[in-house]
Amino acid sequence: MKTQNELKEIVARKALEFVQPQQVLGVGSGSTVKIFISLLPELPFKVEYAVAASKESEANLKAVGVQVLDANEVTTLGVYIDGADEVTPEGYMTKGGGAALTREKIVASLSENFICIVDKSKKVSQLGTQFALPVEVIPMAREAVSRELRKLGGNPVYRENCITDNGNIILDVHDFVIEDPIAMEQIINNIPGVVSNGIFARNKANQVLVAE
Amino acid sequence: MKTQNELKEIVARKALEFVQPQQVLGVGSGSTVKIFISLLPELPFKVEYAVAASKESEANLKAVGVQVLDANEVTTLGVYIDGADEVTPEGYMTKGGGAALTREKIVASLSENFICIVDKSKKVSQLGTQFALPVEVIPMAREAVSRELRKLGGNPVYRENCITDNGNIILDVHDFVIEDPIAMEQIINNIPGVVSNGIFARNKANQVLVAE
Repeated sequence: MKTQNELKEIVARKALEFVQPQQVLGVGSGSTVKIFISLLPELPFKVEYAVAASKESEANLKAVGVQVLDANEVTTLGVYIDGADEVTPEGYMTKGGGAALTREKIVASLSENFICIVDKSKKVSQLGTQFALPVEVIPMAREAVSRELRKLGGNPVYRENCITDNGNIILDVHDFVIEDPIAMEQIINNIPGVVSNGIFARNKANQVLVAE
Repeated sequence: MKTQNELKEIVARKALEFVQPQQVLGVGSGSTVKIFISLLPELPFKVEYAVAASKESEANLKAVGVQVLDANEVTTLGVYIDGADEVTPEGYMTKGGGAALTREKIVASLSENFICIVDKSKKVSQLGTQFALPVEVIPMAREAVSRELRKLGGNPVYRENCITDNGNIILDVHDFVIEDPIAMEQIINNIPGVVSNGIFARNKANQVLVAE
């Protein structure tokens, strides 16, 4: 029986196979991504440049000698490696437990190839069944957006003491089973005051690597 | 022949008729709204409370003795009074010349009754024909969003020296005729990195008052 950390290392090492020489690498955030970054020096070539979705990943990349570029400096990423809070067999995901959802979605959108790395605890048949859905919201719209999310059937809870890198707040939507991820991602994005939401359907995973 | 300022005062005075006693008033921003606020003391009753879409309107409201509430303190507004950069006969608008589009959209969404006050120069048969469309964007997504807006047929230009109240940037989309405002508002909102855009179709004007 392997520990969760051992499972994370197995899947992080598997993701190394998708990294190509002379491409700019995209990396997300979270504990599995942290392990993935630490393994980059094992590659037979040097990863010169990357774009990171969080300040923590940026620091970890620099620590292994990778230069971190601003997203505005690149037009495309060879591959984007990130974890998820939940992932379906079709590659639809929810993300944002670490509050980096908006930046992750921006960096993911630069890549044609999203490799999702998770341990088996993140596999679900339907999104919203295990984790609350994070939504990033302009602070003055907290109550207005909460009312709209309740109309959609969810139970939004304000995440205490959490300000995103963009200066906004997070609402975690509980009890919210997501039947149509593509439609629901769009519906929530169109609520005035919503910056982005943790459903990744438009930018779904191209491949899901599951350690089990 | 009346001056543009005289036209603005005519339409601002007309909007006073929509303000009801014992309701919380919503106000947008801009020069016509500024005149409207200055006329509030002419009403036969006192306006006690308002929600404002910009810091400037907040200061102007306080100057005439109105208490300004945070949007999170109210569940509904009696009426929302605001201008527009362009408005169609159906009440579809573009807004955001003053960079307050996201806050205006949030406050407008609290009201069932959006009264748009404009002079005749703002009337158009199709949106996008006179003004560039403002889009509020997370700074790190400036180039990625610009590429997507070009794919939609527009010519986005970064607005120099402009940081919104939310800490973001503005792209002004030129040469962008908007045939279906409802669809295009949603399409732009779903580009990763877009906070909101200046198309007001979901929250269109219920009545348009035009001075001419």
